[in-house]
Amino acid sequence: MDLSRQIVLERLPQGRLTTDCFRLEETERPSPREGEVLLKVLYVTLDASNRAWMQGPTYRAALTAGGVMYGRALAEVVESRAPGPAPGDIVFAETGWRDWAVMPAGLVQKRPRTAPLSYLLSVYGISGLTAYHGLVDCGRLAPGDTVVISAAAGAVGTIACQIARLKGAARVVGVAGGPEKCAWLTRELGCDAALDYKAGGVRERVREACPGGVDLYFDNVGGATLEAMLVEMKNHARVVCCGSVSTYDGSAPEHGPRGVPGLLVTKRLTMTGFIVTDFAAGREAALAELRGWVERGRLKVPEHISDGLEDLPSALVGLLHGENRGKRMVRIRHPAE
Amino acid sequence: MDLSRQIVLERLPQGRLTTDCFRLEETERPSPREGEVLLKVLYVTLDASNRAWMQGPTYRAALTAGGVMYGRALAEVVESRAPGPAPGDIVFAETGWRDWAVMPAGLVQKRPRTAPLSYLLSVYGISGLTAYHGLVDCGRLAPGDTVVISAAAGAVGTIACQIARLKGAARVVGVAGGPEKCAWLTRELGCDAALDYKAGGVRERVREACPGGVDLYFDNVGGATLEAMLVEMKNHARVVCCGSVSTYDGSAPEHGPRGVPGLLVTKRLTMTGFIVTDFAAGREAALAELRGWVERGRLKVPEHISDGLEDLPSALVGLLHGENRGKRMVRIRHPAE
Repeated sequence: MDLSRQIVLERLPQGRLTTDCFRLEETERPSPREGEVLLKVLYVTLDASNRAWMQGPTYRAALTAGGVMYGRALAEVVESRAPGPAPGDIVFAETGWRDWAVMPAGLVQKRPRTAPLSYLLSVYGISGLTAYHGLVDCGRLAPGDTVVISAAAGAVGTIACQIARLKGAARVVGVAGGPEKCAWLTRELGCDAALDYKAGGVRERVREACPGGVDLYFDNVGGATLEAMLVEMKNHARVVCCGSVSTYDGSAPEHGPRGVPGLLVTKRLTMTGFIVTDFAAGREAALAELRGWVERGRLKVPEHISDGLEDLPSALVGLLHGENRGKRMVRIRHPAE
Repeated sequence: MDLSRQIVLERLPQGRLTTDCFRLEETERPSPREGEVLLKVLYVTLDASNRAWMQGPTYRAALTAGGVMYGRALAEVVESRAPGPAPGDIVFAETGWRDWAVMPAGLVQKRPRTAPLSYLLSVYGISGLTAYHGLVDCGRLAPGDTVVISAAAGAVGTIACQIARLKGAARVVGVAGGPEKCAWLTRELGCDAALDYKAGGVRERVREACPGGVDLYFDNVGGATLEAMLVEMKNHARVVCCGSVSTYDGSAPEHGPRGVPGLLVTKRLTMTGFIVTDFAAGREAALAELRGWVERGRLKVPEHISDGLEDLPSALVGLLHGENRGKRMVRIRHPAE
C-alpha cells in the first residue's frame, strides 16, 4: 500500500498558536476517480491568514478542528482522470497540508514551469500580486509619494518596498521587527529607512523618517502600528489595508486604532481594504511587469524555504512570530519512488 | 457708552462639558478701524465640533481657555470701513459668542438675503452642504443603494436622510437616540426605518432593517455604532466619516472600532473622512440643487432655534446630549436701538 502523510488541525488554539495544535498522521495514498487528479505536493505556502481563518469566518469559512489543515500549494500532476490537466503539469491548488492530494480537476490552476518553481508562490504568486495590486491599484501609488510599508520584511512587504521604489516613490520606509531585519531592508531592499517597531516610538521615528508626512501607508499589521501611522499621514493621504497580522495570533481581535474615525475626518484620509482576487482582471499585466523587473535584476525575491511536511506547524508558528524574511514556504520531500 | 455682551470659555472641560465652563461678561462695544466692519450678530450656529476643538488641534487650532468662545454666526453689517461690505449686508463670519463683533472685512463672507435667514446656517450652510457633499461626492451615493445615517435627527443627518431618498436610494435607515426621534424620522423625514441606539442591539436591528447589507454608511458618531455598522456592510461598501460626536464630549478619544482593519480587508470596505470645505468647487451646484428641492417642497428643513446670547452654553451642552432635532442655533436678541 502506498502511504501518504498529512497534518491534522487537532484543536483550535486558545490564544497563541502552538505546534501541539497539529498532529502528523499517515494514511493510504488516495486514488483519483473520474474527473479528479492525483497531485504530488511540491511546496506549501504559509501565510498569516492561515491563522486568521482559525478565528472565524472571513472571506472564506472558518477552519474547524479535526480535519487536514487547510493550505495552498504548488503541486505536480501525477495522474489525471479528467480532460485538461496532464501528468507533469505544475498546478496551484488548495491541497491542504499533505504530501499527496486528490482534487477535482476543476479546482487546480495550471501554472507555467518557472525556474525556480518557488517563484510561483512568491513574486508570481499571491504575495507578489498582493504587493502590486495593493500599491498600484488600491493605493494609487504615484511618483513622488512618501510610502511606508509595515511587515516590510515579510512576503508581501519585501516585494512592496521594491515596487514602490521602481514606480517612482520619493521615499520608501519599512517597518519591521528587530534591528537585523531593518538593516537588511535598507541594505538589500533599497528602503530609505527602516524602523524596528519592537523598539517602540514608531510614531516619533516615522516622523523623523518622513518629516513631511506620509502619502501612502501599506498596512499589513493593524494594531498599534496602524494607530501610530494615522497620526503621521498627510491630509488626503491613503491607507491600504492588506491584513492585520498583529491581531491574528490570539482569540479575538483587539480594539481598533484610536484615530478612527477622528483622524480620518480631520486629515480626510481614505482607508481601503482589499483582497488580491478582486484584481483578477489586471493579473496578467501585473505579472508581466513583475517578470520584467525580475528578469532585468531590478526586483529581488527573498524566500525563506524549509524542508519537510513535518516542518509546517513550526513554520506557521515562526511566521506568526515574525521569524521569516520574504516568502515563507515548505518544500515537501518525496522519497525516491 | 454702548455695551456689548460676550461669553468667555473660562476653563476647558474635564470630562463632559458643563455650562459653568462659560461666563457671560459685558464690555464696551468695539468700533471698527480702517479695513474693518462692525457686525450685529443675528444667529450663532452650534456644532458638535465646537466641543471637539476643546480636545486639541484638528483641522484648526485647539480652543484655549480665557478668551471669547469661538463660534460661527450670521450677522448684519452695521458699519463698514472697508471697500466691499456695506451696511445692511448679511454675512457669515467667525464672530465668536458675542452680540457685536468687529472683524477685518476680508474675513466676512457675504450671503444672499434668504427668507428665512436661518436657512443660511442650516440647509444652505455648512450642515446642508456637509450632508450633500458627504453623500454625493465623498460617498458616491448611487440609485438603489441601501443607506444608513447616524445622528440622523441632527443638523446634517436630517438633510442627509432626505437627500439619500431624493437621489434614489432604495432604502434609507436613520440611527438616532430615543423612540421619539426615531418615530419622527420615519413619520416626517421619510426614513424607511429608524433605530434607537440607546436601546442597544444596533447591529441586530440594522440587520433586520437591511437584510441584504448596507452599501453606504454616513457616520456622524463613531464609537460603538460605527463598530456595529462595519459588520453589517456589504462587500465593497463605503463608509463616509463625517464626525464622531460620540467621542467629543470627554477628555480624550476612546479606542477605535474593533473591525479596523480586519473587516475593511475581508469586506473590502473603503472608509473616507471629509470636511465640507474640500468640496468648495462644487458648492454652487450643490446649493442650486438644495434650493430646488426646498422651493418645490421636497426637502424639509428642521431647525431648533432658541433665543438669547446667554442661552449659548446650555444650547451647546444640549446639542452634545442629543437634545436637538435638526439644526441647532441661537438667535441673538438686540434691544431696540
